[in-house]
Amino acid sequence: MTNRQMVLASRPTGMVDGATVRLEEAPVPEPGPGQALVAVRYLSIDPTIRTWMNDAPGYLPPIALGEVVRSGGVGEVVSTNSERYSVGDMVTGLTGWQDYVLADERAAMQVIPPGVDPTLVLGVLGVTGMTAYFGMVDVGRVGEGDTVVVSGAAGATGSVAGQIARIKGAARVVGLAGTPEKCAWIVDELGFDAAVNYRTDDVAARLRSLCPDGIDLYYDNVGGDILETCLAQLARHARIVMCGAISVYNDTARPPGPSNLFNLIISRARMEGFLVLDYLDRFPEGQLDMFQWLAEGRIQHAEHIVDGLENAPDALNMLFTGGNTGKLIVKI
Amino acid sequence: MTNRQMVLASRPTGMVDGATVRLEEAPVPEPGPGQALVAVRYLSIDPTIRTWMNDAPGYLPPIALGEVVRSGGVGEVVSTNSERYSVGDMVTGLTGWQDYVLADERAAMQVIPPGVDPTLVLGVLGVTGMTAYFGMVDVGRVGEGDTVVVSGAAGATGSVAGQIARIKGAARVVGLAGTPEKCAWIVDELGFDAAVNYRTDDVAARLRSLCPDGIDLYYDNVGGDILETCLAQLARHARIVMCGAISVYNDTARPPGPSNLFNLIISRARMEGFLVLDYLDRFPEGQLDMFQWLAEGRIQHAEHIVDGLENAPDALNMLFTGGNTGKLIVKI
Repeated sequence: MTNRQMVLASRPTGMVDGATVRLEEAPVPEPGPGQALVAVRYLSIDPTIRTWMNDAPGYLPPIALGEVVRSGGVGEVVSTNSERYSVGDMVTGLTGWQDYVLADERAAMQVIPPGVDPTLVLGVLGVTGMTAYFGMVDVGRVGEGDTVVVSGAAGATGSVAGQIARIKGAARVVGLAGTPEKCAWIVDELGFDAAVNYRTDDVAARLRSLCPDGIDLYYDNVGGDILETCLAQLARHARIVMCGAISVYNDTARPPGPSNLFNLIISRARMEGFLVLDYLDRFPEGQLDMFQWLAEGRIQHAEHIVDGLENAPDALNMLFTGGNTGKLIVKI
Repeated sequence: MTNRQMVLASRPTGMVDGATVRLEEAPVPEPGPGQALVAVRYLSIDPTIRTWMNDAPGYLPPIALGEVVRSGGVGEVVSTNSERYSVGDMVTGLTGWQDYVLADERAAMQVIPPGVDPTLVLGVLGVTGMTAYFGMVDVGRVGEGDTVVVSGAAGATGSVAGQIARIKGAARVVGLAGTPEKCAWIVDELGFDAAVNYRTDDVAARLRSLCPDGIDLYYDNVGGDILETCLAQLARHARIVMCGAISVYNDTARPPGPSNLFNLIISRARMEGFLVLDYLDRFPEGQLDMFQWLAEGRIQHAEHIVDGLENAPDALNMLFTGGNTGKLIVKI
């Protein structure tokens, strides 16, 4: 029995390519006292993985060269020396891009309650959904009557963020996405009021007509030009929730920022970054709401499943080319 | 009797020059029913005047060509048809750059209580001081133990903002200024812990050594490179109070913004713009504190007085060349 591991071979400049990640084979680790062996079943493919590949300070240390690529995932306990884990348990945590990982008793892996779809735990009920939830509710303080714009709206986080805004009473929810199919999906299936195709539409003009009184809340997954466009159309006391900046994660040089930050003064507006890791102790609160909304059919979600550990690097690139709709998952 | 008026003759590109403002002579206006005639004594010279000269949307409409340059000021009532104003009253409001202005009963001018130094009303007790106060206390939520950095620290607002941070319990207050004299003044007279000369020092290195645990609160009067430098050194949950962006007001093309806004995410930080106009109804609260701090000698202030209405344009330029220390006032 071998453990296939995708390790970081070189730091990418731009998109991940054939030289970035190397497949290695290691012995399957033996669980020591208090440990369990987990067979990884699903990997959560998130933009933040790309930022960890850079040799730059961030909210977590960079992935070291030769180290297994860090990644959230779900696995099944296949042997155990721990009372915390039983064989057959589904668990979630930072599994990394590999076939097997050890779980120990320091809560590094959480047991998924029986009956809960394990991929939901990577999506709406997990980090992705909680990023949407706390970003929209806590950082953005979305409220009744708000005009809300979401970028990356067909992505895992954006698609949920927009639906939460609607549930919380936003008057208008506009999403930006990059294909006609995605635009149709967020309007027809998710209940966004309107979609803007950022590749083909005149984004500034479309937003101006869709948000005639300005944008109260911009949930930003992309940064770059769209951030600048939204800064120019803020309503008074607007909030910009900085969730991510996927448009620049692959850039080798840091591009300049928006030239119109002064609009934050004119509009008395707030721009705030956050990391969902800070909300770990409040996850139950968000998960409870999300459970209920799922049960009521008020939250729709999509999963985009890619087969095979060896395809994880290509899957990661899909986030940046816009190849996925909804939560991107690699099935091992 | 004539009323000398400085009117906007052309919109400046870059600094104000000889073609920007034209001196005109008009008859002294006659106060109608409910009006009073005010002889203007002092003009408040503020960076925002430069922004009003541009033909660009802002928080107030641009000054029209041919219109008297908009400006705060202080004057003396010299004749009156209003019960609100008595001859000899000192009043403050938007006087404009001219010898005389009419006050009416719609509270366009506030009577300064007898005994209060009228120039203080343009400075620490007026818009300038209240900008420092509400920016630091309300937007920045300065608190015990904070490491605070203030740019434009020898200016009217920055010099007061830094002192308020100290009064409110900041552990460390660092100011940026552009000459050795200003740096000495903010440390020796105002009680800042340290000063950085942004023209001659390695700002990033100096801030890193002065703020080893990062910047909790950056009170930004200047924007531009210094904003970018501070964004790179934020402590977790930092706040950036956007008061102004004097470094770019004179630029004809909008320069790009900071390339490292992503640090707002890594540091879970908030960047917020504000306008003191929104705090008008809370001025008494700020003025009460400021009165007390002045009486206790806990707030020091400086005034830089320029003589003569005709020198108002040169005075305005001084704000951008760093020619003033403290509150810049034109005496008529």
